[in-house]
Amino acid sequence: MPYVNIRVTRDGVTAEQKQALIAGATQLLVDVLGKNPNTTVVVIEEVDTDNWGIGGESVTERRKRGE
Amino acid sequence: MPYVNIRVTRDGVTAEQKQALIAGATQLLVDVLGKNPNTTVVVIEEVDTDNWGIGGESVTERRKRGE
Amino acid sequence: MPYVNIRVTRDGVTAEQKQALIAGATQLLVDVLGKNPNTTVVVIEEVDTDNWGIGGESVTERRKRGE
Amino acid sequence: MPYVNIRVTRDGVTAEQKQALIAGATQLLVDVLGKNPNTTVVVIEEVDTDNWGIGGESVTERRKRGE
Amino acid sequence: MPYVNIRVTRDGVTAEQKQALIAGATQLLVDVLGKNPNTTVVVIEEVDTDNWGIGGESVTERRKRGE
Amino acid sequence: MPYVNIRVTRDGVTAEQKQALIAGATQLLVDVLGKNPNTTVVVIEEVDTDNWGIGGESVTERRKRGE
Repeated sequence: MPYVNIRVTRDGVTAEQKQALIAGATQLLVDVLGKNPNTTVVVIEEVDTDNWGIGGESVTERRKRGE
Repeated sequence: MPYVNIRVTRDGVTAEQKQALIAGATQLLVDVLGKNPNTTVVVIEEVDTDNWGIGGESVTERRKRGE
Repeated sequence: MPYVNIRVTRDGVTAEQKQALIAGATQLLVDVLGKNPNTTVVVIEEVDTDNWGIGGESVTERRKRGE
Repeated sequence: MPYVNIRVTRDGVTAEQKQALIAGATQLLVDVLGKNPNTTVVVIEEVDTDNWGIGGESVTERRKRGE
Repeated sequence: MPYVNIRVTRDGVTAEQKQALIAGATQLLVDVLGKNPNTTVVVIEEVDTDNWGIGGESVTERRKRGE
Repeated sequence: MPYVNIRVTRDGVTAEQKQALIAGATQLLVDVLGKNPNTTVVVIEEVDTDNWGIGGESVTERRKRGE
């Protein structure tokens, strides 16, 4: 029954990469805590770079400056 | 002041269904805990089937296999 | 597979009330969207009144003032 | 390392306003708790008015009625 | 900068298991998306079994019935 | 109606500091987006240092090493 939420910037994550995140996070819960994979839920959220900030600045602005 | 967050797969949920979820969740908090409906917030999130996984697999993949 | 998260202030919510919230939220998803109750997850979070603010003030402070 | 999540209705929030929210929330954590701004993350979520309810009604419906 | 949130029932998860979840989730983001581990955040939430429901019933109740 | 969620490590944040976070976050939404403070909600979550990871390591472990 675990629930895993993964938030990343929206940067062209492919369906294959999403599938790999889902499989990997589920296996992690099986390996570490012995959870049942059939009831383990993984939800991926993709966030626009305007909407994600770090260091007091949006990722959009940071990338413009080359960071 | 309660806050209810409902996450479902993005499957053509209509505005009427969303309204029914909002009304029902608000009434539930009134009925069970005596909360004030006027300050009860409900937020619905719709998640693409590529981004929702269960059993180590995305819902997109599961549906391809007929599950 | 829906996921419902209910946040309320920590005010002595009983196990029976929690059970009623879980049953009611699950039934709501069945009734409105035809979801499978067996894979519907409900998580209740109780938040200390010092940690919950509305109107720019913690609930603790509001209650001291009789609101 | 603090993490701030701001949810608002999707109402044409501009990139400049988002930048102001990110800068302001980060500075708040610096001022109040002495946190390191370089590891402070702010994520803004914009929610459709059909998907946000208060008082048992979606914001879309409330606005139709002039509230 | 990714952010991973893992929710599990409160069942005596040890500090070593938490460390394994943190390390594994971080490595997953490195492997699949090439993310920088130094800015990858993992937050684990442990939820009382009274507060976690599935199938319309709390985990506490399910366990009493031997499920 | 905005909703702000602030997550920090559990490090003895005082009621006064929590009140300052609530007041500051609410004012930020008023200043930047013209939101109504009376319906702006702020929820603060404090997370044990065992349960918060960055750089693949729990904050507990990082602090033991003097970081």
